[in-house]
Amino acid sequence: MDTTLLRTEGPSGLQRILLRGAGQVMFQNNAWTGLFFLAGICWGAWQNGTHVVFWGALAGLIVSTAAGWLLGLPGREGDQGLWGFNGVLVGCAFPTFVGNTGWMWLALLLCAALTTWVRTGLNRALAAWRINSLTFPFVLCTWLFLLAARALAGLPDDRMADPALPAAVVPAGEWRFSELAVWWLRGIAQVFLIDSWGTGLLFLAGLLAASWRAALWAAAGSAAGLALALLFGASGADIAAGLYGFSSVLTAIALATVFYRPGWRSALWALLGVAVTFFVQAGMNVLLAPVGLATLTAPFCLATWLFLLPLVRLDDAGHPDHSNWEAENKRHLAPPDARV
Amino acid sequence: MDTTLLRTEGPSGLQRILLRGAGQVMFQNNAWTGLFFLAGICWGAWQNGTHVVFWGALAGLIVSTAAGWLLGLPGREGDQGLWGFNGVLVGCAFPTFVGNTGWMWLALLLCAALTTWVRTGLNRALAAWRINSLTFPFVLCTWLFLLAARALAGLPDDRMADPALPAAVVPAGEWRFSELAVWWLRGIAQVFLIDSWGTGLLFLAGLLAASWRAALWAAAGSAAGLALALLFGASGADIAAGLYGFSSVLTAIALATVFYRPGWRSALWALLGVAVTFFVQAGMNVLLAPVGLATLTAPFCLATWLFLLPLVRLDDAGHPDHSNWEAENKRHLAPPDARV
Amino acid sequence: MDTTLLRTEGPSGLQRILLRGAGQVMFQNNAWTGLFFLAGICWGAWQNGTHVVFWGALAGLIVSTAAGWLLGLPGREGDQGLWGFNGVLVGCAFPTFVGNTGWMWLALLLCAALTTWVRTGLNRALAAWRINSLTFPFVLCTWLFLLAARALAGLPDDRMADPALPAAVVPAGEWRFSELAVWWLRGIAQVFLIDSWGTGLLFLAGLLAASWRAALWAAAGSAAGLALALLFGASGADIAAGLYGFSSVLTAIALATVFYRPGWRSALWALLGVAVTFFVQAGMNVLLAPVGLATLTAPFCLATWLFLLPLVRLDDAGHPDHSNWEAENKRHLAPPDARV
Repeated sequence: MDTTLLRTEGPSGLQRILLRGAGQVMFQNNAWTGLFFLAGICWGAWQNGTHVVFWGALAGLIVSTAAGWLLGLPGREGDQGLWGFNGVLVGCAFPTFVGNTGWMWLALLLCAALTTWVRTGLNRALAAWRINSLTFPFVLCTWLFLLAARALAGLPDDRMADPALPAAVVPAGEWRFSELAVWWLRGIAQVFLIDSWGTGLLFLAGLLAASWRAALWAAAGSAAGLALALLFGASGADIAAGLYGFSSVLTAIALATVFYRPGWRSALWALLGVAVTFFVQAGMNVLLAPVGLATLTAPFCLATWLFLLPLVRLDDAGHPDHSNWEAENKRHLAPPDARV
Repeated sequence: MDTTLLRTEGPSGLQRILLRGAGQVMFQNNAWTGLFFLAGICWGAWQNGTHVVFWGALAGLIVSTAAGWLLGLPGREGDQGLWGFNGVLVGCAFPTFVGNTGWMWLALLLCAALTTWVRTGLNRALAAWRINSLTFPFVLCTWLFLLAARALAGLPDDRMADPALPAAVVPAGEWRFSELAVWWLRGIAQVFLIDSWGTGLLFLAGLLAASWRAALWAAAGSAAGLALALLFGASGADIAAGLYGFSSVLTAIALATVFYRPGWRSALWALLGVAVTFFVQAGMNVLLAPVGLATLTAPFCLATWLFLLPLVRLDDAGHPDHSNWEAENKRHLAPPDARV
Repeated sequence: MDTTLLRTEGPSGLQRILLRGAGQVMFQNNAWTGLFFLAGICWGAWQNGTHVVFWGALAGLIVSTAAGWLLGLPGREGDQGLWGFNGVLVGCAFPTFVGNTGWMWLALLLCAALTTWVRTGLNRALAAWRINSLTFPFVLCTWLFLLAARALAGLPDDRMADPALPAAVVPAGEWRFSELAVWWLRGIAQVFLIDSWGTGLLFLAGLLAASWRAALWAAAGSAAGLALALLFGASGADIAAGLYGFSSVLTAIALATVFYRPGWRSALWALLGVAVTFFVQAGMNVLLAPVGLATLTAPFCLATWLFLLPLVRLDDAGHPDHSNWEAENKRHLAPPDARV
């Protein structure tokens, strides 16, 4: 890959925009981070024998970014990769849950493109509340299409959980510390729905390339989710697959490094947020069981919103609220032209 | 019926207001359209031996319109039939799903009246987002009462689907073109929950009386929903009953003729919207299965909102967004006194 | 208990703030009301052999109030007990539905504290719509944690209803008037999830201490919910437990005495609201059956919002809408600093 283009300063290095799109899944406006993330997806897909997940991720990333360009949405959002991060997640989710047919690919492309204008619309709607749609466009659109897959023979749903009433939980048994490390890294990898500890390592490396703080909080978030899941007796199979890690990873990065100025107060606030994310994750697993749907990153979105909406003041710098601590993060919070 | 009154120009021809209420279900502020629609409901009800559906439609229309008058809501909304269109749908839905008891009628009247102020409230709430509640007041109120019917012996729920976990789908088998035409027309009739192709013809005639463009897009919407359902392998029974048509009909009319200035760009946008409506319809069928609830027109509402919220610019006339292309349509978008 | 403190006029009598917190569950900014309410909880808990419910209520009240103080939220809200009313309900709900383990207490404390900033956030978000979050912070947070309990072995869910598809209803059989009185009083007691008619009497006494009007409407609300449930054939077991009373009690107090100026018009409006609350209650019972979740006070919140959002004018005093009839009630509607 020609890394020169990645360093180009112009507004429209296409590769850079795409790579940033992957990086923005964890709030990093950084092409190198995105490159590590795509490498992690690739590694996990090959490890698990599901190559199609990698190709789906690429297709989703490209189509959702192209949709922003075709619709003439504000270009500075595209430059930061903000058109692509929902699409790349759609591209990971479809081949993970739906059988590999031509109709699946058609649905994937439509859904990935859809996330781009759903994001614009939701951000506009949420701007008055000073929150951002986060990854909820991915969650909403993918939920709708995955539910549809159950009603459409052209979209085989064999890889989705069987619809079932919530049943008794089987907690994890004895465990060794080496297992803990694997589960912890899988928790980070599951942000992109990948079940592979090697992918988790590559994701951590990608975060380090952009921000040691983000990497630290990703690691802490997954560890905290894992610890709470073990203490409260969550399902052993879910714990081992890293399914109590990914939402906590995202909440931790969002609250501790993106929306609040880093400090001891925001660190405590982020830890509270991670704890709440854990309960929301467990609760949504139960809520969606009757239709056999995965929570995707909805627990992260809901918990983070609950910690952003009150506009609690956590620093002494005279900033009126969390949205002002740095210009870069204002853009995450709400597109300037949508502010009410 | 005295058709003179229908032509009267004054602000308060009662019959005209009621007929417009029926017409507004498909966005037509036109008494003749409403007359055709009521005729279509009547025809379908007699064909299917469910006369009570027609009487329900009339009762719902009258009561919801009267509620607007009793509450002193802005009269110009009432003149356009905007108090009655949710109520007439409530009146079709109750006898379709609930057994014909005195308690059913009491619940129908309360629910129809309720839609009028729920519409006012939701339009007020949604005005800042520059969207309109569409038929969602009907959907929300009817859902609540149909769910309640399952818990109340006085409201027999025999005609509702049994609550069940989502099961494997049985796609349509071989079909002939004559069947396609019937299914296509039923898709239009199902906007008012009527399972009759003759009703579909009458509805098309009613649309033609007001706007050839609306009729064309209604026809195209039902055809597109039908084609997608066959291609993606949706349930054959649902396809034959027209259940993949009605939401697409409404999305097509809304996006191609009401909220955006007609043109090739808005035509493409409307086709995308119809495709998304199809997946939302399939998905919501699955989501509501465990409580055995019909989607009603919720897929239309959700999909149309997703295509209106981003305020995408689709014309070159210097209009800042979809809400300004014609004064008539501004009123659909948000009551002027509720604008923030 | 030193009742002097209760009468102190200063801004920060801690006991008074806590007692007002209990009183605010039924909109009474009155420490004596709160004292009666806590006595009612205590009585019911001892009667039913579930002492832990009383200790939970106290813990939830204290922790949620402390959370508001620790976060530095506006003090005048705290003075009125507005930090504590969601927390005291969390404290009643957790030991009612979840087994008495150390983990339950940890979750209870986190959830009770969470309601305080969720309330701040939701009130801020809803201010533009001129509605208030009511008891929805309690509902939302408790739902999430109760759902999580099904997925966590550390939170035993034996006392929750088994997840089940909605089944046929068994209406009440013959009844005597003495039974009616018991069911009616239980309907009032269930506002705090207590199944005891003695508690209902104590709650009525508490309301009388603050406002004869609130007591009257609480009594009328429970009676109307009970009558509708008997007429429409709701589940006999639910009726006997008072489960068709509590939401109607709250809607009646809110619409007839808090948000609209008392009068014959607002009385009719409140009765309509109580009728709608009844159907919403029955409907939500069905909706939540597949995950075995209680509705909590959600039917009250939803129905009351539907009657507040349209800003219907019900008095002749020249007030533009319901939010202005008395300064005291403005504060319920939206915190002044959050008004848009």
